[in-house]
Amino acid sequence: MSIKELVKQINAKKSFLCIGLDVDLNKIPEHLLKEEDPIFAFNKQIIDATHHLAVAYKPNTAFYEAYGIKGWESLGKTISYLNEKYPEIFTIADAKRGDIGNTSAMYARAFFEDMNFDSVTVAPYMGSDSVEPFLSFEGKFTILLGLTSNKGAFDFQTGISDGKELYKKVLERSREWENSERLMYVVGATKAEYLADIRRIIPDSFLLVPGVGAQGGSLEEVCKYGITEDIGLLINSSRGIIYASSGTDFAEASRAKAEELQKQMEDILNKR
Amino acid sequence: MSIKELVKQINAKKSFLCIGLDVDLNKIPEHLLKEEDPIFAFNKQIIDATHHLAVAYKPNTAFYEAYGIKGWESLGKTISYLNEKYPEIFTIADAKRGDIGNTSAMYARAFFEDMNFDSVTVAPYMGSDSVEPFLSFEGKFTILLGLTSNKGAFDFQTGISDGKELYKKVLERSREWENSERLMYVVGATKAEYLADIRRIIPDSFLLVPGVGAQGGSLEEVCKYGITEDIGLLINSSRGIIYASSGTDFAEASRAKAEELQKQMEDILNKR
Repeated sequence: MSIKELVKQINAKKSFLCIGLDVDLNKIPEHLLKEEDPIFAFNKQIIDATHHLAVAYKPNTAFYEAYGIKGWESLGKTISYLNEKYPEIFTIADAKRGDIGNTSAMYARAFFEDMNFDSVTVAPYMGSDSVEPFLSFEGKFTILLGLTSNKGAFDFQTGISDGKELYKKVLERSREWENSERLMYVVGATKAEYLADIRRIIPDSFLLVPGVGAQGGSLEEVCKYGITEDIGLLINSSRGIIYASSGTDFAEASRAKAEELQKQMEDILNKR
Repeated sequence: MSIKELVKQINAKKSFLCIGLDVDLNKIPEHLLKEEDPIFAFNKQIIDATHHLAVAYKPNTAFYEAYGIKGWESLGKTISYLNEKYPEIFTIADAKRGDIGNTSAMYARAFFEDMNFDSVTVAPYMGSDSVEPFLSFEGKFTILLGLTSNKGAFDFQTGISDGKELYKKVLERSREWENSERLMYVVGATKAEYLADIRRIIPDSFLLVPGVGAQGGSLEEVCKYGITEDIGLLINSSRGIIYASSGTDFAEASRAKAEELQKQMEDILNKR
């Protein structure tokens, strides 16, 4: 997918919502547990109910790996379903991978080729040669961790490294890497006040913003400081949408929650 | 497994060798490709040929994920084989995971419970609450990335953060985390001269040291600066051992290469 197609979809749907498919068998409606593949059954109904309100879906791989081979099968079915039925949707493997060069190339192959995701999240700690193998894939995007939404972000990311916060150094340096135009960044919504500074370093890059909803971040604040000409934001909500109800009405309930967010986004887009 | 058992094994085998099972179908002997599961067939023969010379095995998950469900099956069979046939062996899932708390807990479950690895490698960028869920597992170890063996290590890890190199800050801070006695650290052999400094911060922790062999690190140098009373080192070699021959004699050839390293380790241990 290209950025152009993503922006076109955002404008058509009046939404820049990403839905996190972090599926925990202990949290999904009980009636689904008798299905052959409860995780995929859950995802399929959530996707069918919300696809017109969201522009991206983001399964976090941890939730699938925790169920072993069966979990990987559910992930495979989910991405195939998205690619076949809703090819306009931007897909994100939230995997936070990163390793030495030849090894990162294997991860890139897993997510971009084997599963055909549009993008994957990657951790920056190991530096340029751990990220560039992901960037070499045309039409694919690498979403680098910048400033994350958790409290541990203050342990290392905001420390002053060579005169500036480490996350700013990550943003700056990464712009010099090969094919850096295929980079997007993770910036937590719980740290919206940092977005003005961040936009000075990466004025146009798309940001994947988790932390609205359950983690307490504000959509208005994020947009105030982070929105660009091309929107430049993908706002993620996971638990707040997918676990809106634990009954047989879970898909409808998720649609209602997604619609709430989409309406707020539409208002923001209309006011620009 | 306990540190005590690991040290006992090291002393019994006169070896602190870890063998990296980074299996690439393009590099394994051609005659194995007709097997139902070529990756597992390869690993099984390598393990059978070298288990008396090594104390640990380290599959890097990227190489398995790249083959999708089949790759995960091969990984599952490999860890089950190790746990059943050679339970004294220390097993490392080289996965370099790390995410917000509830998500890291899912990864921990995948590697410690579902697959029953003794340890997993974790990236520190997201801080304490991304690592502590791994540390909560008794009898399991979390191997935190400190100073890695690749050139990208100089992008962020060696930058001066709050008055000291970032990797030193990672080592220091991590010692304050809950259950930090279950931490080990990755330190690349290509940076042996840093080990004296590192030992001042973490005098007793076990270090997983990649980069001897193909990447150019020296075993003598690493031991000179890094060895402790309890040895405290796991020296990893992957390509140098497992791809020693591409013929039907690959397992014997891998044994010969492992034995070379084991003999060097035995010499070092005897000279202490």
